[in-house]
Amino acid sequence: MIKSFTAQYRVYYEDTDAGAVVYYANYLKFFERARTDFLRHLGISQQQIMLDDKLVFVVKRCEIDYLKGAKLDDLLDVSVMVEKIGAASLIMKQIMLNGDQIMAQLQVEIVVVDSQNFKPKKLPMLIKQALLDYIDA
Amino acid sequence: MIKSFTAQYRVYYEDTDAGAVVYYANYLKFFERARTDFLRHLGISQQQIMLDDKLVFVVKRCEIDYLKGAKLDDLLDVSVMVEKIGAASLIMKQIMLNGDQIMAQLQVEIVVVDSQNFKPKKLPMLIKQALLDYIDA
Amino acid sequence: MIKSFTAQYRVYYEDTDAGAVVYYANYLKFFERARTDFLRHLGISQQQIMLDDKLVFVVKRCEIDYLKGAKLDDLLDVSVMVEKIGAASLIMKQIMLNGDQIMAQLQVEIVVVDSQNFKPKKLPMLIKQALLDYIDA
Amino acid sequence: MIKSFTAQYRVYYEDTDAGAVVYYANYLKFFERARTDFLRHLGISQQQIMLDDKLVFVVKRCEIDYLKGAKLDDLLDVSVMVEKIGAASLIMKQIMLNGDQIMAQLQVEIVVVDSQNFKPKKLPMLIKQALLDYIDA
Repeated sequence: MIKSFTAQYRVYYEDTDAGAVVYYANYLKFFERARTDFLRHLGISQQQIMLDDKLVFVVKRCEIDYLKGAKLDDLLDVSVMVEKIGAASLIMKQIMLNGDQIMAQLQVEIVVVDSQNFKPKKLPMLIKQALLDYIDA
Repeated sequence: MIKSFTAQYRVYYEDTDAGAVVYYANYLKFFERARTDFLRHLGISQQQIMLDDKLVFVVKRCEIDYLKGAKLDDLLDVSVMVEKIGAASLIMKQIMLNGDQIMAQLQVEIVVVDSQNFKPKKLPMLIKQALLDYIDA
Repeated sequence: MIKSFTAQYRVYYEDTDAGAVVYYANYLKFFERARTDFLRHLGISQQQIMLDDKLVFVVKRCEIDYLKGAKLDDLLDVSVMVEKIGAASLIMKQIMLNGDQIMAQLQVEIVVVDSQNFKPKKLPMLIKQALLDYIDA
Repeated sequence: MIKSFTAQYRVYYEDTDAGAVVYYANYLKFFERARTDFLRHLGISQQQIMLDDKLVFVVKRCEIDYLKGAKLDDLLDVSVMVEKIGAASLIMKQIMLNGDQIMAQLQVEIVVVDSQNFKPKKLPMLIKQALLDYIDA
């Protein structure tokens, strides 16, 4: 069975554009908030691992499908599933729902790099362990 | 021979995040500015075609590769090439360069829809004609 | 006694800039979210009053004091007090706190205008009534 | 005679909101771009003075008047005048025009602080000298 993490975010004026729906780049903001809150939920602080392990998560690639335009005041459920855990990378799948309607979905590839020289670094075992529960396998 | 359109944009504080590079969603802003300026360059006003033809361009899908983090004050060259022209859709390829270094690339699928009911609409012949010169074929 | 409305918002990467604090324009986003959630709390839907009364709230003037830079992961308490209710305008005072530390404060003047011709319109009695409880007098 | 610096910026979809005008916080982005380009025009690199002098410019207070809503595709002229030069602070006046119509004006107070401990620092003589030409006195 696949476990997923879901958090809820409101659409405000700042997110919309003159087309009266959420601006296409801003969907990535909602998706990133959910990933951050997912890590926080797992007890992982991105600030802490930068200080302790000198590593940062960097987005390498995104594939987004826009299915329906989210509107002002919509309350969006954004979920996170782990698709693949590599030595120094992660692939996550994310879905944005408004009620039971899919608004957008994202596949995002994240690499773990050294915060100084930006070279790939191994994903710490503790984080790997925490993520394993959410893998979509 | 492939023709492409290129425009130049500066990175300001607003575009960066606490990681000291351009925030991952904001790359899509630079790419969209280039597409808008490309259409303007072709004499196509998105506002005019909304009024005259009751149609809007909507982004359906994006595939972005992040190759290098753009930094404050960078002067980015963002180019647009037309990959495919369908009856009611377009695929464009875009590259973001800082000097001769590729920062990011995007493949974006755009659909033409009715501005009222959001149903697919045929791409007007005049726009099709104008875009044909920039097709990557 | 002064009644105020307070809501809590998280700082994400999207809000910060290369200076590692929240970008100065983005404080206005947090303040606006709080005003929107305050109206929602009072049972006032900005979308509904636009449809029913053909009126919109427009910001006319802001005075912001930046006291301390909000950082990634901060959980901000943003409050709203009504300072003055005019025939077709409102003045609100807002404070942003991180714990018991004041990060920023805002005085914002809002005018009520016709959604078509943007001329001043009288604030509906129902909204006036609802706001009176929160006046700082 | 007052000297001022002016630069021109286009309004894109990203700047607008569902009200079909530029989102109120985003006016501050245009104003900041003009201040950055003004300093660049004077030969002052904010990145350089951070490295060389360990100082950063921080916005302390803003007073913004919104006079008319800027729209998609507008080409905005944003100007900068220096109002007052203090030992460790600056007051600037800025105007945003669309053609000969004033859209917004800003008075912004900026303080010069140490990039490590955020304590006030003296404005370097070279920068003071360069700014004196643009003082509105």
